[in-house]
Amino acid sequence: MPGDATARRGRRRGELTVAAIARLAGVSPPTVSRVLNGRSGVATETRRRIEELLREHQYQRPPMVVPSSGVEVVFYHVLTHIAVEIMRGAQDVVSGQDLSVGFTDLLASPSTERSWVEQMLARRPVGVIAVHPHFTAQQVAQLAAGGIPLVALDPAGQPEHETPSVGAANWSGAVAATRHLLSLGHRRISVIGGPGVYLHARERLEACRAAMETAGVHMDPRLVRNGQYSFEDGVALGRELLSLPDPPTAVLCGNDLQALGVYEAARQAGLRIPDDLSVVGFDDIDNVNWVGPPLTTVRQPFREMGAAAADLLLTLIAGQTPPQIRVELPTTLVVRGSTAPPRH
Amino acid sequence: MPGDATARRGRRRGELTVAAIARLAGVSPPTVSRVLNGRSGVATETRRRIEELLREHQYQRPPMVVPSSGVEVVFYHVLTHIAVEIMRGAQDVVSGQDLSVGFTDLLASPSTERSWVEQMLARRPVGVIAVHPHFTAQQVAQLAAGGIPLVALDPAGQPEHETPSVGAANWSGAVAATRHLLSLGHRRISVIGGPGVYLHARERLEACRAAMETAGVHMDPRLVRNGQYSFEDGVALGRELLSLPDPPTAVLCGNDLQALGVYEAARQAGLRIPDDLSVVGFDDIDNVNWVGPPLTTVRQPFREMGAAAADLLLTLIAGQTPPQIRVELPTTLVVRGSTAPPRH
Repeated sequence: MPGDATARRGRRRGELTVAAIARLAGVSPPTVSRVLNGRSGVATETRRRIEELLREHQYQRPPMVVPSSGVEVVFYHVLTHIAVEIMRGAQDVVSGQDLSVGFTDLLASPSTERSWVEQMLARRPVGVIAVHPHFTAQQVAQLAAGGIPLVALDPAGQPEHETPSVGAANWSGAVAATRHLLSLGHRRISVIGGPGVYLHARERLEACRAAMETAGVHMDPRLVRNGQYSFEDGVALGRELLSLPDPPTAVLCGNDLQALGVYEAARQAGLRIPDDLSVVGFDDIDNVNWVGPPLTTVRQPFREMGAAAADLLLTLIAGQTPPQIRVELPTTLVVRGSTAPPRH
Repeated sequence: MPGDATARRGRRRGELTVAAIARLAGVSPPTVSRVLNGRSGVATETRRRIEELLREHQYQRPPMVVPSSGVEVVFYHVLTHIAVEIMRGAQDVVSGQDLSVGFTDLLASPSTERSWVEQMLARRPVGVIAVHPHFTAQQVAQLAAGGIPLVALDPAGQPEHETPSVGAANWSGAVAATRHLLSLGHRRISVIGGPGVYLHARERLEACRAAMETAGVHMDPRLVRNGQYSFEDGVALGRELLSLPDPPTAVLCGNDLQALGVYEAARQAGLRIPDDLSVVGFDDIDNVNWVGPPLTTVRQPFREMGAAAADLLLTLIAGQTPPQIRVELPTTLVVRGSTAPPRH
């Protein structure tokens, strides 16, 4: 098992003990332990001072103090299919080492008093894969001070500092989807993007624009919308677009849920897919095989992304530097029944 | 943390050590350890003899030998939505104790050499929740000998011996669904059941029959089918039923995926739901809100079932006897847009 003493012996470790840090901070050693273990009962100012000292002196827990038996995958607002695929990928990699794959859903978490970082410090996994949460440099440092390596999977923002991360080729996936519609003859193409706070949402929108403009097709700003990655926003924005005087003949969606929402908007408007409207999704969640017609979409390889994140994590746990800090896996356009040439 | 020394001290423990068991079995102590830890390299006959001795003498690992930090949820052929809801429920219960919830998907598991019980013995969670796997009395004994409590969630067959289990009220859910269709005026009602190896599939089918017959409506055997819990079987069986000379006006499905398959069969036959055909599912997975029209279905409370299983497990981990060995949670009929009175 790479997660415990063996691996940690290989890591550079600070010189100072908990007692020494406590002296520097002017507190008792148990107070430092409380901060290290993510427990409450330490004043904010004191906590901050202790965290700074731990970071400054690169404090590392001595080996074998706290046993652990798994890596933890922390989710924030992720579809169930995606969550399970990511955990399957992590399982593929770590189960050979008899490590478990732990599941934490922040939205479902009943303990609101503690941040997810504090929960991790209390539970002490050998490493953490964080899917989508925003996290601050301070939180990363807090985990690092606790000796818990972190890998980000498709983070909402650019990862802070040197946090290794895994993502998928959003740009080329969106280009492939756009070119597919262009090659079918579509010119009035709508784009429904995800929330602007997500870097990958911006990347996909700009990729659609680039693919259209390099093909000599103008992207009509009246056909561009942004919304949550939800079925409901797909329905609402789909209705808006389909009730325009000159509606689109095709819609590129930011994710599959939005696309299923556009299906519903089309159904309500009496339009048939793909005869009257082409729809393309993004993600390839299992749901899109169970709708009529099956959805054309851009596949993100979530299982492989989970495996790649676990690989990076095992490297960090072993005290080694990963060969690259950012891993990006390819996306694939999967053409099914929801796209066809426009009627006119 | 209840999983370790504290809890185990409270449990009745066998008198014999590994060395004593080894003497009785006529093998070396490391051979007994190999069996306890789920490792290979022990002849089948020897393994069986050792397992019998461990069981007979109620062998329990001494406390603090192997640390662990989580409960493990083992899935076999479960939809992603259901898996995540069950883990959320388990998280609700155990995260307050700083235990993690581990994820093991047997179908996705890359290690085919070892059984899931052997994987658990090697990884040593503080307890296991098994969702759907068939398991034998011998496997249960093997886990028990390793000191790992087990709770079954909605098992495929009747749980063996005293394994505590959690399920949902299949019978009353199926009765409610059938009565809903009867009250709308349906008389030609099809039932698509799950695989006959699942006890709950038989229970639901018999409940539909009972509800119809007590209402004085004959269940036409030509309208009854059995299939896998899959979209594909829903499409295939839906096509068969809709092409009968006297087709049904409503279909009760064994799960939601089959119901989505019937949607597709209806679409291909040019029938509209609910105008031309009423459809009812079972489970209430998130997908059924994202189809047009939203599906009327029987809700199984998967999150609550996961929480109930975790509650039972914590009781066992604490060395106590649960107040009841079988917990059954209520199901609820959720009426949405896929059911309406028949045309004629």
